[in-house]
Amino acid sequence: MRDLAKVRSVGRAAIEQVRPLIMAGFDRRLTISYKNEMDLVTEIDLASEKGIVAIIEESFPGDGILGEEGGEVRSEAEYRWVIDPLDGTTNFAHHFPFFCISIGFEQKGVLQYGIIHDPIRRQTFEAEKGKGATLNGEPLQVSKTPKLSAALLCTGFAAARRDDPERNNMPFFDRFWKKCHGIRRTGSAALDLCYVATGALDGFWELGLSPWDTAAGSLIVREAGGTVTDRDGSPHTLKSGCIVASNGLIHPEMISTLAI
Amino acid sequence: MRDLAKVRSVGRAAIEQVRPLIMAGFDRRLTISYKNEMDLVTEIDLASEKGIVAIIEESFPGDGILGEEGGEVRSEAEYRWVIDPLDGTTNFAHHFPFFCISIGFEQKGVLQYGIIHDPIRRQTFEAEKGKGATLNGEPLQVSKTPKLSAALLCTGFAAARRDDPERNNMPFFDRFWKKCHGIRRTGSAALDLCYVATGALDGFWELGLSPWDTAAGSLIVREAGGTVTDRDGSPHTLKSGCIVASNGLIHPEMISTLAI
Repeated sequence: MRDLAKVRSVGRAAIEQVRPLIMAGFDRRLTISYKNEMDLVTEIDLASEKGIVAIIEESFPGDGILGEEGGEVRSEAEYRWVIDPLDGTTNFAHHFPFFCISIGFEQKGVLQYGIIHDPIRRQTFEAEKGKGATLNGEPLQVSKTPKLSAALLCTGFAAARRDDPERNNMPFFDRFWKKCHGIRRTGSAALDLCYVATGALDGFWELGLSPWDTAAGSLIVREAGGTVTDRDGSPHTLKSGCIVASNGLIHPEMISTLAI
Repeated sequence: MRDLAKVRSVGRAAIEQVRPLIMAGFDRRLTISYKNEMDLVTEIDLASEKGIVAIIEESFPGDGILGEEGGEVRSEAEYRWVIDPLDGTTNFAHHFPFFCISIGFEQKGVLQYGIIHDPIRRQTFEAEKGKGATLNGEPLQVSKTPKLSAALLCTGFAAARRDDPERNNMPFFDRFWKKCHGIRRTGSAALDLCYVATGALDGFWELGLSPWDTAAGSLIVREAGGTVTDRDGSPHTLKSGCIVASNGLIHPEMISTLAI
């Protein structure tokens, strides 16, 4: 059994390593054209992932790694790190201040640790299986909003799924909109999950996400007392693609709203 | 002709006055139930507007005032202040950190000065007719994104208009979604307009807004070099209800997307 204190210090070190790189890119972006921006974002995304992977491999050279940019290495390993080096790249490219770094750690497919860092607000969200979730060290707790009609929700529209009817979120957006207090759309699924954990959002759903979008965030929601499932209420796995995360209280209403 | 330096110092003094009240309410909210939250928000909204109005009337007792909470007074006056004491109340109630105070100042129906303050980020956006727009004193400039397909947009779904087919934004959300780089939904129209002015957003549209939602923000966008119109491209007035604000370059594409 891996010592999670060591895992945590590697996760934190990785964030420390890439944070300046990302913020330097964010500042630099103001001086360049839109086309070059997209190239810059790709460059920063790659450099951030490379930095995170280097830190992990220094401490745990045999671990598997699944990253948005680099694909999967050592897929047979017992331990696996699931990395989004820059979640919210569209926001980043446009200088809309809502993006983060997300790192999850699994043993045999079960999430054990997650860390998400928002470099703009200097907020670090962390969770360890069975030990709760924190924001800059302070314990997190999901909201107590009892019903969907009073709930503030958030969702995303995965760009790559625009033409996939299976993943078309528009009908569900319309349904939820008629039932809840409000819906937000920030463009960073990992940070949305953190806001469910803080209680600022009562629920989040998205159809068509990748493992790195939800690895750390789903653990953070659960450890803050929330519920995370697939769209039909079955257990969420990183292969699910769809995610429903909530304070638990509104979860049944969210699942029934997502029924086809 | 009113001395705008004096108007500006009254606007800033009003923000200073109500900022602590709003932030104290934001912190207090964490300890109370949802139903009481809504009462607290209403209470803070009212107290904030009362504070702003008191500061204005101290310097300019004869000016007209149009506020979200207090309705209109002295509607025949040459000068008018248009106030949203807390834009983004749903966010505020849920502790989602995206809300602001907005104050606009008109002479004979023409906006002369606007100030919007984001108390979470300590950001003050200001504009004076013909003098440009600033963020914490630094000049603002809209983005240079040349076309809708590369644009990051933002919109809102006015809660009160949910059952009004004339104001149903869902079909337009769907159209824009198929054409642009991404759409955000923050829940504060006034701050969305500020983000158009900074260039973080390339465009914003909403159907069914009130004068206090757009008074200061529309001037800030224009003074940052952007374009603000009604949904059909005609001049925007505070009575319009609909607003389209952009960097100018994508404006024709936005207007044609909003054609019925």
